[in-house]
Amino acid sequence: MSGVDLIIVGRHVVPVVPEGVVLENHAVVVTDGVIVDLLPAEAAATKYVAKQIVNLGEHILIPGMVNAHTHASMTLLRGLADDKPLCNWLMEDIFPTEGKFVSDEFVRDGTLHSAAEMIRSGTTCANEMYFFPDAACETFEAVGMRALVGQIAMEFPTSYGSGPDDYFAKARAMFLKYKDAKLVKLSMAPHAPYTVSDETFARVKAISDEFNVPVHLHLHETEGECCDSETKTPSMLCHQSPEKCRPLENMQRLGILNNKLIAAHMTQLTDAEIDIVAAAGTSVAHCPSSNLKLASGICRVSDLLAKGVNVAIGTDGAASNNTLNMFAEMKLAAILAKAESKQSTSVPAAMALRMATLNGAKAVGMDHIIGSLEVGKHADIVAVACDSIEMLPMYNAISHLVYVAGREHVTDVWVAGKRLLAARALTTIHESLVKDHCKKWYGAINSHHAEMQAKN
Amino acid sequence: MSGVDLIIVGRHVVPVVPEGVVLENHAVVVTDGVIVDLLPAEAAATKYVAKQIVNLGEHILIPGMVNAHTHASMTLLRGLADDKPLCNWLMEDIFPTEGKFVSDEFVRDGTLHSAAEMIRSGTTCANEMYFFPDAACETFEAVGMRALVGQIAMEFPTSYGSGPDDYFAKARAMFLKYKDAKLVKLSMAPHAPYTVSDETFARVKAISDEFNVPVHLHLHETEGECCDSETKTPSMLCHQSPEKCRPLENMQRLGILNNKLIAAHMTQLTDAEIDIVAAAGTSVAHCPSSNLKLASGICRVSDLLAKGVNVAIGTDGAASNNTLNMFAEMKLAAILAKAESKQSTSVPAAMALRMATLNGAKAVGMDHIIGSLEVGKHADIVAVACDSIEMLPMYNAISHLVYVAGREHVTDVWVAGKRLLAARALTTIHESLVKDHCKKWYGAINSHHAEMQAKN
Repeated sequence: MSGVDLIIVGRHVVPVVPEGVVLENHAVVVTDGVIVDLLPAEAAATKYVAKQIVNLGEHILIPGMVNAHTHASMTLLRGLADDKPLCNWLMEDIFPTEGKFVSDEFVRDGTLHSAAEMIRSGTTCANEMYFFPDAACETFEAVGMRALVGQIAMEFPTSYGSGPDDYFAKARAMFLKYKDAKLVKLSMAPHAPYTVSDETFARVKAISDEFNVPVHLHLHETEGECCDSETKTPSMLCHQSPEKCRPLENMQRLGILNNKLIAAHMTQLTDAEIDIVAAAGTSVAHCPSSNLKLASGICRVSDLLAKGVNVAIGTDGAASNNTLNMFAEMKLAAILAKAESKQSTSVPAAMALRMATLNGAKAVGMDHIIGSLEVGKHADIVAVACDSIEMLPMYNAISHLVYVAGREHVTDVWVAGKRLLAARALTTIHESLVKDHCKKWYGAINSHHAEMQAKN
Repeated sequence: MSGVDLIIVGRHVVPVVPEGVVLENHAVVVTDGVIVDLLPAEAAATKYVAKQIVNLGEHILIPGMVNAHTHASMTLLRGLADDKPLCNWLMEDIFPTEGKFVSDEFVRDGTLHSAAEMIRSGTTCANEMYFFPDAACETFEAVGMRALVGQIAMEFPTSYGSGPDDYFAKARAMFLKYKDAKLVKLSMAPHAPYTVSDETFARVKAISDEFNVPVHLHLHETEGECCDSETKTPSMLCHQSPEKCRPLENMQRLGILNNKLIAAHMTQLTDAEIDIVAAAGTSVAHCPSSNLKLASGICRVSDLLAKGVNVAIGTDGAASNNTLNMFAEMKLAAILAKAESKQSTSVPAAMALRMATLNGAKAVGMDHIIGSLEVGKHADIVAVACDSIEMLPMYNAISHLVYVAGREHVTDVWVAGKRLLAARALTTIHESLVKDHCKKWYGAINSHHAEMQAKN
């Protein structure tokens, strides 16, 4: 009998690797935050003594989900304005509100809020991009959640920085501060082709090479971005480069398009561009709810996957979704791909689950430590109850995870072996504190927004 | 002070009529199952004495949702098979399983299950189509849920009937049996153009006129149905009519296309056909999850609404969704319409909520008694909690109902003033009984399905 820290017994275990496998009555054995065995529960009982044994009954254990594109703090702007043209929404609602309120405190409170929401819905790792990333990093580390936190770069000044020089100086300091962090890793996050110049992209390339970090940006999100860049038609969405070309081509020219790039959205792709993305080894963060809600377009997920591109799934920020619910996003990714490709066989359930877990892990450069329940990987584990009326009967656990389960079925969550959610109670975040923050920000933001609307 | 049965106090009340209105701290006053007043909670306290006062705190009260197209008993086949071509799924999985198992008992158990699922997710009325409708009617009446239950008609024999003569004889008996039913109304449900002949459609028309009942069918669900009918290419989906035309044209010719028709799916519509549907006053039951999952196509909801067509929302059966979750369907209807029309202003939240409530009520011919919280209408009311982390902050209750809320936020449900769900507990259905049924059917169906698969 070996001594271990934790045994989690799952009625069903879906390890994601191998794909399509459902193990019945299996135990995940954890020591020092790492999975050291995965074996039949009966065998585990005779092989190991554990400091803690958790047997959740009628549950499915899965790897923690990876939200491959989000702006965590924007939970505080959830539903501030909807159903407007993208440019009006940005210019009349989002940018002025951000300009007035975004601060270290806003990001700290918003990240805490989003971490609570993500943990409660089975997400254990977020690919984050926003201002004041230090506040986000400290919050994710404090609550015990994993994240890849982008260091923003753009041409114009914000409350976070005065311009490119300042953003890069701050990024450099951050890379040093967090080089040995346990849960948080950093990326460079040049916002988008229409807010970042070629010169700044070149500096992004240099610093990401120097520190060996991924690059995370918005790319080919809308038709306007692509068309206006190709013709250099002055618009909010036209890329900053003097080149008359689609932004993807420009990213390739600048050396940004490589296997360290996470390109969010990518709703506009030609066949040739899909081949280019595949050859570059770039990951795509598919955000179906946001893309539909903002009428941006529909990413060609089936074609990308057929060419071997690593497609992950993200919620985008809560201002454009309006949730951080990866269960909803996973289902939508699976069913939307079928309509887009006109093939009901596209993105079967096991592939959708893989996109929400292992592909996300690969996108953020963490697939060697998370994304599947395999011996040697960190114990980022989510338990999904499968005994409610809504989940019955269950002929196939993987189908139910994708097409039936909701965020509300997540009962328990571990990150690196630490239990962050226990029987739906957060263990590292005070719910009441999150709600107090919401009240505070709601009051200020709502008044300001009403004043602005009155002026418009 | 007048005596009334029930006062429900809502922190927010969204009555749907007038559209876009959110009443703060209002009371819905109910007597004999009917809404007799809707007024500020403070005024209600001095004007009425009630047998019961329910104050739910941070909640939004809305009209009960109407699921405008479903096959309730198919919850028992939830997730039996997915990710297959439509014809294979029907021929290899659904039809053989139905052939073996569908019976009065199956429909009774399945309808109880689906009623539990629908009530728990805020649906108070279902537009139902399946075999053994008497078992469905008795179950809906017994649990206190409202429904329009279709009397199936098709050419081929099933366990329910030997052919058209038998289906019509059974329908006639049902119309007499339920003519004075309290909650359940009946419709004629000729399954689809590809399973019903012109002669049978003529009889459907005659009997629906005789009993003055709506007609409910699947129409223009897939491209194959339309193309094969237009060219009379023999296929499973080609309509039974000898006419070389699209099924909609044939329905018009046969007099089926009128303001008593509820046409489910309608993913294939030309501009001219949209005008025809609008002129006929036909209701469309839009089922976005099912249409995406089966790769059927995307209904042109924005164009239909622009022409004044009554578009309601349905989940379809749980075998092709795989839930009966109207919150998910309402959000998908709202965001998919934006992508389909390339306008982020399409189907704003208030319209999506109206589609899920009042438009559904109109489709099933009940908008004079349900679909909105107005004085004189029956008290079909749903309470949605808005104080969880996922629902905060809340700048706009209607936006949150559509884009943020989930089925799990439904805490209380009344139909005709009777409380069917109280603090998430079903009051007329034993959850344990539903689960026992699931176990029983799962065992039998799963073994049979595994045997069939082994043979294939």
